[in-house]
Amino acid sequence: MKYDELEVDQCATVVKQLSGDDIDAFARASGDHNPIHTDPVFAQTQGFADRIAHGMLLASWISALLAENLPGPGTVYLRQELEFRRAALPGDTLSVSVTVAEKRRRGRVRLDCLIQNQNQEDVLRGLAEVIAPG
Amino acid sequence: MKYDELEVDQCATVVKQLSGDDIDAFARASGDHNPIHTDPVFAQTQGFADRIAHGMLLASWISALLAENLPGPGTVYLRQELEFRRAALPGDTLSVSVTVAEKRRRGRVRLDCLIQNQNQEDVLRGLAEVIAPG
Repeated sequence: MKYDELEVDQCATVVKQLSGDDIDAFARASGDHNPIHTDPVFAQTQGFADRIAHGMLLASWISALLAENLPGPGTVYLRQELEFRRAALPGDTLSVSVTVAEKRRRGRVRLDCLIQNQNQEDVLRGLAEVIAPG
Repeated sequence: MKYDELEVDQCATVVKQLSGDDIDAFARASGDHNPIHTDPVFAQTQGFADRIAHGMLLASWISALLAENLPGPGTVYLRQELEFRRAALPGDTLSVSVTVAEKRRRGRVRLDCLIQNQNQEDVLRGLAEVIAPG
């Protein structure tokens, strides 16, 4: 969506179920094989019911939503702030959303980013800054 | 490395050569199949010599370095700021480093994050906040 068409409070959301395969694929792609992501038994020693997703896997879903939906193809990624609030485990149903927070000069747009689980608990909060397509 | 052993200015670096396979694996793992990452011809229409890495692929290398090296296993990821400065292309040799910037209360540590290419140009700059192992 072009910069001129974007409106503050405009929102895009995708709902995804996190799987162990998602985590395994991300471990291979990132090279992060920390056992808290790959080994349920180790994760239990750390106080989790199961292994947990990499924070950057969840962040990559935000990045994909920006690139594919809002603003969508042609978006240039400038900055991203990420706050990891709660672990996400295989089987969790995650609602990933980005909301236009501010239109700035020269095509720049800030978007609030939020991932919540099936209990409406915040898993990740963030702020993206992009250049929207002209 | 435990919180008490960490020192300000302590640094960990890994050098990685970015491949097209890295980008393809990350596209599958993240679901971000934007043609700027997957199609060299499209990327050329956008002014790049080749397709470019996802910013979050590069960020995931920082995350892996924090998790595996400094502070290392047991690190809890709280926050990450990312500033995407320059595109990275297949064949680029990227130096990924994290440097302890500040030790705070209750095990919290801030680390400066930097990725530079083979021309010593900044590709990504950032700031991580973690809880180091106790």
